[in-house]
Amino acid sequence: MKTKSYVYGEWVEGTGDGVQLFHAVNGSPLTSISSDGVHFSRVLDYGRETGGVALRELSIHQRAAALRALAKHLLSRKESLYAASKATGATKADAWIDIEGGIATLSGYASLSTREFSNEKFIVEGPPERLSRNNTFAARHILVSKRGVSVHINAYNFPCWGMLEKIAPSLVAGVPVVVKPASDSAYLTCAMVQEIVASRILPEGSLQLICGSTGDLLDHLSEQDVVTFTGSASTGRMLRSHPNIISKSIPFNMEADSLNSCILGESVSVTDPEFSLFIEEVAKEMTIKAGQKCTAIRRIIVPAAMLHEVQNALVKRLSRVVIGDPEEEGVHMGPLLGAAQKKDVHANVLALAKHCEIVAGGDENFELVGKAACKGAFYPPTLLLCKNPLEVDAPHSIEVFGPVSTLMPYNNIEEAITLVAMGRGSLVSSVFTYNNEEAASLILESAAWHGRMLVINRDCAEESTGHGSPLPNLVHGGPGRAGGGEELGGVRAVKHYMQRTSIQASPDTLMAITREYMSGATTTHTDIHPFRKYFEELLIGESLVTHRRTVTEADIVNFGCLTGDHFYAHFDEIAARDSLFGKRVAHGYFIISAAAGMFVEPAPGPVLANYGLENLRFIEPVGIGDTIRAKLTAKKKIKKDKRPGEDQATGVVVWDVEVSNQDNKIVALYDILTLVVQKQA
Amino acid sequence: MKTKSYVYGEWVEGTGDGVQLFHAVNGSPLTSISSDGVHFSRVLDYGRETGGVALRELSIHQRAAALRALAKHLLSRKESLYAASKATGATKADAWIDIEGGIATLSGYASLSTREFSNEKFIVEGPPERLSRNNTFAARHILVSKRGVSVHINAYNFPCWGMLEKIAPSLVAGVPVVVKPASDSAYLTCAMVQEIVASRILPEGSLQLICGSTGDLLDHLSEQDVVTFTGSASTGRMLRSHPNIISKSIPFNMEADSLNSCILGESVSVTDPEFSLFIEEVAKEMTIKAGQKCTAIRRIIVPAAMLHEVQNALVKRLSRVVIGDPEEEGVHMGPLLGAAQKKDVHANVLALAKHCEIVAGGDENFELVGKAACKGAFYPPTLLLCKNPLEVDAPHSIEVFGPVSTLMPYNNIEEAITLVAMGRGSLVSSVFTYNNEEAASLILESAAWHGRMLVINRDCAEESTGHGSPLPNLVHGGPGRAGGGEELGGVRAVKHYMQRTSIQASPDTLMAITREYMSGATTTHTDIHPFRKYFEELLIGESLVTHRRTVTEADIVNFGCLTGDHFYAHFDEIAARDSLFGKRVAHGYFIISAAAGMFVEPAPGPVLANYGLENLRFIEPVGIGDTIRAKLTAKKKIKKDKRPGEDQATGVVVWDVEVSNQDNKIVALYDILTLVVQKQA
Repeated sequence: MKTKSYVYGEWVEGTGDGVQLFHAVNGSPLTSISSDGVHFSRVLDYGRETGGVALRELSIHQRAAALRALAKHLLSRKESLYAASKATGATKADAWIDIEGGIATLSGYASLSTREFSNEKFIVEGPPERLSRNNTFAARHILVSKRGVSVHINAYNFPCWGMLEKIAPSLVAGVPVVVKPASDSAYLTCAMVQEIVASRILPEGSLQLICGSTGDLLDHLSEQDVVTFTGSASTGRMLRSHPNIISKSIPFNMEADSLNSCILGESVSVTDPEFSLFIEEVAKEMTIKAGQKCTAIRRIIVPAAMLHEVQNALVKRLSRVVIGDPEEEGVHMGPLLGAAQKKDVHANVLALAKHCEIVAGGDENFELVGKAACKGAFYPPTLLLCKNPLEVDAPHSIEVFGPVSTLMPYNNIEEAITLVAMGRGSLVSSVFTYNNEEAASLILESAAWHGRMLVINRDCAEESTGHGSPLPNLVHGGPGRAGGGEELGGVRAVKHYMQRTSIQASPDTLMAITREYMSGATTTHTDIHPFRKYFEELLIGESLVTHRRTVTEADIVNFGCLTGDHFYAHFDEIAARDSLFGKRVAHGYFIISAAAGMFVEPAPGPVLANYGLENLRFIEPVGIGDTIRAKLTAKKKIKKDKRPGEDQATGVVVWDVEVSNQDNKIVALYDILTLVVQKQA
Repeated sequence: MKTKSYVYGEWVEGTGDGVQLFHAVNGSPLTSISSDGVHFSRVLDYGRETGGVALRELSIHQRAAALRALAKHLLSRKESLYAASKATGATKADAWIDIEGGIATLSGYASLSTREFSNEKFIVEGPPERLSRNNTFAARHILVSKRGVSVHINAYNFPCWGMLEKIAPSLVAGVPVVVKPASDSAYLTCAMVQEIVASRILPEGSLQLICGSTGDLLDHLSEQDVVTFTGSASTGRMLRSHPNIISKSIPFNMEADSLNSCILGESVSVTDPEFSLFIEEVAKEMTIKAGQKCTAIRRIIVPAAMLHEVQNALVKRLSRVVIGDPEEEGVHMGPLLGAAQKKDVHANVLALAKHCEIVAGGDENFELVGKAACKGAFYPPTLLLCKNPLEVDAPHSIEVFGPVSTLMPYNNIEEAITLVAMGRGSLVSSVFTYNNEEAASLILESAAWHGRMLVINRDCAEESTGHGSPLPNLVHGGPGRAGGGEELGGVRAVKHYMQRTSIQASPDTLMAITREYMSGATTTHTDIHPFRKYFEELLIGESLVTHRRTVTEADIVNFGCLTGDHFYAHFDEIAARDSLFGKRVAHGYFIISAAAGMFVEPAPGPVLANYGLENLRFIEPVGIGDTIRAKLTAKKKIKKDKRPGEDQATGVVVWDVEVSNQDNKIVALYDILTLVVQKQA
């Protein structure tokens, strides 16, 4: 049976024989794969016209809600995915990272997108930019969905996570996806896509799957499309220089395997907890997924004085790793994905061995647990030692995509920094030390070469998510050899699929475009107090100018006595005269409290609470005898869905507050956040 | 005399004959240019080793101060630059954009970098990311200077601005620059660099200049270098696919000439102010710098019903443009840069004329003012008309880099949006309408194709900075044909020259690296109140836990009476019972005021003022009888330079404030901003 593609709303079986795939553990034939006969230009058009249009009809929160529902659905179907993953040779722990880690990334994006973005179809970024003296001409930055598709060309090692971590931000951005998993494990991606398609949660056309080669897909890309790639540097280079990608300036994001490092700090002794944490992390990262991880530790950088101890401890630790059929009890490490991968790993170990000494593994002498296991795809944990790593390039440039790592000594911190940089760009590096000064200098001097770095010590090790795990809210990627790209990083990845545009116009026009009030825009006024209006009834720009209040000496005295704040600027005539203010002034907190006193409506109404305040600046001091008033303007509305258990649906209303004095000078400026009830709920 | 390069600390004259350059107005020989003999790998090494190291020793504010001083210096030398610019054929207005616009960009970056960034050598981006239940393991994002050089390959049309707008963010980022201006006007860039070098304001090695070809420069780039390019799409494509740039994943930012459009709204009638504003802007953008501007209007998109009126008005307006030697009184438009440019412009006009009708200009029949003027480089304002623009690609794809634009009609707003998109990516588009709904739909549907858009109407026209002007705080660039890059945009451009890295560690380690306190990090305590400490004496993480205060019914009553805030949740027992809170609670403003009452020191001291407050969230309600206390922790320090006229140097201290109740539950969380005096000042 062939692994099918899901394109233009159909499951399509490729023509021809296709490529035969085998079970990683026992070597038996599994499925074949071919995309011959798929019309790639039709795939792209279908994505753009069916998926793109449908996604752009949803708001960002609606797209996030679809991801949340999808994550829930996939979690309910996880057993079938675990079953399908066995053929890849994954242990249960390996499969957990891929399947449940991937699903968690999906729900992570659902949450962060709802939290960080407004419930609109576009994103407004940053504050208004003032461009003119009278503020009749200003600017804002917005991001809108690209009008194309995003094509994701993924690696074989994470058939599920690799797809989900990329489709999540793209779908939130409103951009449909075409997923092209690496052929070798595409059947597992396909199993997950079957669940996704069957669920009908995503709008039709927003996700297509190509199992097999990409054919002439890239030739049909256009200026609004986006390509992301995860895999080997050589394939990445080829794709990045594709004439159509170059000529249309198509964004190309690449995340390539790199020679990630792990550094043992100079300050760590054998008896420190950091020493054993280091040994454990290195061994773990060498053997999880049999080292087939782009973030695995390939270079182990330790103080020269500790080389012997580290080597002994690591060799001992690795000797305890049980290799075999992951179905068998007690097995720690499964096979590589196939015989081809093993051949590649062994060839690279031999290449490294020309410059380094093999101190563990590296040959066929290892025990295998489980009768079904086929020796063809297994490889033992292999440790090499390079004694002169500053002079030899091999361990910094030959990446062995398996359970293989090279140990190398350094003599001082500058040497350690140089060694790390010799990888010429990595996804991740970790530092083990309990000395925070040492950590800070290693991090600040090495960060330019990495997309992610960790410092592990006794305080954080237990809760650490580990060297090898990219997280949805953290940037993942790295410069140079790691591909120069950036994935994840929370909202950053969503923006990658959108176009950022600066918009210059009058404040009124900007308010109409962004649906956010800004200073200079026209405010409107009705006879009904805005706090008496339901969420739906409120218009952006709707405003209330309060009555006035003269601030008296009695106010200052009463406020100071009530709050206990007797700061000299309010109470000491002599010191106040020499102060910034030149006189006694009212408490800033009094000004905002009195402003609330002027704009708050006492009786119950749709405004449930003022739960926060942002960007408060005291602009001018308020002296005794000054008369203040407040202007409250509905600035931004974020509609929220009614959650299970809630009586009423609500929304967030952000109000712009300006407190001014008798000379119409603004004395305080801030935003308040309120929760307002929806009428229709 | 040859135009020299400034490399490895020397002014170097290229060997060989070089390329001869001519005066744009009178065609006389001017200078020649050659970079033969320049050792390009030495240029890069010198930048990395001398310039990079020196720049990275400065804090971001120190780098910004250098830019501020440089802008001041260049402004004092502007007359010599205006004199040198005459040979390019620029009018005074053209030269003003290039020279003073460039200098303003420099000082713009000095200001925004001081305002937006801390005074450190790195940038901390975004809030802490919580990663674990007990918060022993968390993350932050930092950006550090790339360890390479940035190579800026610039266009001939803005020899000064083109250099300054790119070096400003790179230098703020701590990355030395190698500037390679287009040969044709490199003498003007060189004149400015002579002033920069002579001023000795920038650290040696931070700015090098290559006049002539780039030789084998690109072959020597490494993973930490950055390339930016402004110019034609064809050159950009060639550079972007350079094998060394591809293989090392070197960031390549491209800004290419594009077919920018200007749209007259459907709602505009001939008598509306927007009609004449539109005609004026189009004519201006066609003729400033003789149309040699990557942001010039190339496509004029108007309602079919208005085509005739627009054509007549434009032809009439263009006929008033006086062409000639910019030295002569009353001249509006000078020559193109040279005969080669003119030949190119004319060839492209002929290519367009196969599909469009020439309705103004396009030939040799035009008057030239000034005896010195050499007809070779002048070209008249030329208007073409394309009646079927949806069917013809030429006016959307042939860019004429001169005073040339094509008029085209649309029948409805969807057609207008389609026509705009047919440019396949532009730097900028402007919309003329007084109807904000029309504006919003045109902008939101077209933004995906642009880096910048404007809406001009009667309210903002007078203060508008115009269709053609990129501004330092706004994104400049565009997708597709415009190169897919992003320049300027305020802090965004600075970050382009830095590496973003997520750092995972314990809160204490993160505090040591970022020099910012975060929740979960260890706080320290001394016997001296932190408000009694000078800026330098305060340590990050230094903390004060206040005495306690029981909140009473009297407090609520007094606070309500004093402020006038009688909201039912504080005063109406019956309504409060049914509210979110279930009982009467204290005013949120009372809580933060009482907290200040507990932590403020009454007597004069180093803390001059609490000038702002950020990120306030009321987490738990405080009821009658609850007992609160505050914890104040020094979170972040931003040292400021003493400005002329200030008595004392100060710094900003951001304090983390946690107000908690008797159960150690946090009731309110916020940051306060204070101005604190420096001791040594």
